[in-house]
Amino acid sequence: MNLILLESYEVDDAGAARLTGARATHITTVLNAQVGQPLRVGRVDGPLGTGIVTSVDGATVSLACLFEPTPPPRPRVDLLLAVPRPKVLRRLWSQLAAIGVGRIILTNAARVERHYFDSHVLEAGTYAPLLVEGLQQARDTWLPEVSVHRRFKVLVEDDLDAMCPSGVRLVAHPGEGQSIRQALSRVGDARVLLAVGPEGGWVDFERGLLVDRGFQPVELGQRPLRSDTATIALMTLAHDALRQMG
Amino acid sequence: MNLILLESYEVDDAGAARLTGARATHITTVLNAQVGQPLRVGRVDGPLGTGIVTSVDGATVSLACLFEPTPPPRPRVDLLLAVPRPKVLRRLWSQLAAIGVGRIILTNAARVERHYFDSHVLEAGTYAPLLVEGLQQARDTWLPEVSVHRRFKVLVEDDLDAMCPSGVRLVAHPGEGQSIRQALSRVGDARVLLAVGPEGGWVDFERGLLVDRGFQPVELGQRPLRSDTATIALMTLAHDALRQMG
Repeated sequence: MNLILLESYEVDDAGAARLTGARATHITTVLNAQVGQPLRVGRVDGPLGTGIVTSVDGATVSLACLFEPTPPPRPRVDLLLAVPRPKVLRRLWSQLAAIGVGRIILTNAARVERHYFDSHVLEAGTYAPLLVEGLQQARDTWLPEVSVHRRFKVLVEDDLDAMCPSGVRLVAHPGEGQSIRQALSRVGDARVLLAVGPEGGWVDFERGLLVDRGFQPVELGQRPLRSDTATIALMTLAHDALRQMG
Repeated sequence: MNLILLESYEVDDAGAARLTGARATHITTVLNAQVGQPLRVGRVDGPLGTGIVTSVDGATVSLACLFEPTPPPRPRVDLLLAVPRPKVLRRLWSQLAAIGVGRIILTNAARVERHYFDSHVLEAGTYAPLLVEGLQQARDTWLPEVSVHRRFKVLVEDDLDAMCPSGVRLVAHPGEGQSIRQALSRVGDARVLLAVGPEGGWVDFERGLLVDRGFQPVELGQRPLRSDTATIALMTLAHDALRQMG
C-alpha cells in the first residue's frame, strides 16, 4: 500500500479523517506509523496529499490531511473487455487499476461462457475493494468506472458512443494490423478505447461491428496470450505510447 | 492449450507419440479430436509441427507427428528477477513463458523476505508444469532455463557473465532513466537481460552493483506496480521494442 485512499465522506472540511479497519491496521502494523508521521493519502477521484497521524487509539487512526490543489490526470486509456473467466478477472481488477484505466466496459461475446455472468467477480462488492487495492499500490486516485453489458451488439451500436464519445478506438487481434504505437502516433490529447476479446478472439461478426464503429486493428505479435496477460500487455503498450508522445 | 507440447523422448524417430494424462484428456474432451484430425504440436526446445491423431484408445491418444525443419526463434529477452512473494510468483510462471523468456534468473535481494526461498513455487516440480502451460498457450517450444540464487552479490559479480555473456542489460527503476525503447534502439540482434527488483525496489547497493556490471536504468512511468504486473509490463515493452526494430 503506497497510498492511503480516502472516500470524500471520510474527510471533513478541515481535512481531518478517522480510519478503522484494514487501512488503520496497515498504518499501525505494516507502516508502524507514530503520531506526527506523514503518510501519502489521496481522495477517491480527487487529489493526492499528505496525512499527518494525529492519534492512534486502539484500532482507530486519525489523520490531518492536506491535499494538492488539483487531482492527478485521469488515466487516458479505457478498456472494452470481453468478460474473462472469473478466476482470471479476479486477478485482473487490481492490476488494471494499478496500470491505470479510466473506464472498464465488460461485455458478452460469442466466446464468453454464459455462466461467467453469474460470478461474484462481476459484483461491485467484490471488485471495488480490488480496484482500490490497485490504486493504493500505484498511488492513483481515479477509481475506474465499471459497467457490465450482456448484449454486445446493443453495447457497441447504441451505448458506446455515449460512454466514449471521442478518442481513438483500437481492437487487438493477433498478427493483424499496425502496432499500438503506430496507431497512436497522431492521438494528440484524445482518449484511447482499447477492445480486448475473449480467449479464442472475437468472432468475425463482432470484429466487423467493432471496425464499423471505428475500431482500428492493432496487433501484439504472434503469440496467443491468456486474457489477463494480453490485457496487461496491451494496456502497457497503450500507456507507453501515450507517455512517449507526451 | 493452443499447442500440444511433447518431450523429445515422447516422440520416436518416425514421429509417433503416445500420450496419456492431461494432454490426452485435453485432446479427447476439450478438442474433441477424432482419428485423422491434425493438431498443433511442438517438441520442447525444438520445432513446431502437426500431429495427426492415429488412435484414441481410452485414456491414450496416439499421434503421427511431422515437425518443421527448424525450431522457432528462442525468445531474446532474459529476466533477472528478485524473488517475488510465492503467491505472486506462482501466477507469474505461465505468464512469463507465454510472453517469451529465454532464461529466468531468480535472486535474493535486501527486500526479499527470507522465507520466500522455502516455498514450493521455487521447485522445478511446481514451476515446470506452469512454464509448459504458458508455452502451450503461446505456441512456443522454448522452455525457459531457470536458476535460483541466494546470494545477489555472488550472482551479479561472479556468475552472471557466464550465464548471459553478451547483450544489452537493463534495470527497471520507477521514474529513472530512458524508456526501454530508447535503451534498445541500437540493440541489433543482441539478447536483452532485464533486471526487475522486489516490491519496494532494489536498495542502493544492489542498484549500484547492477549499474557497475553494465545494467542501464530504464523507467516504466511513475506508478509503482506490483512485482508481477511490473514484470509483465517490462517484458512486453522489451519484446515490443525488439519486434518494432526487427
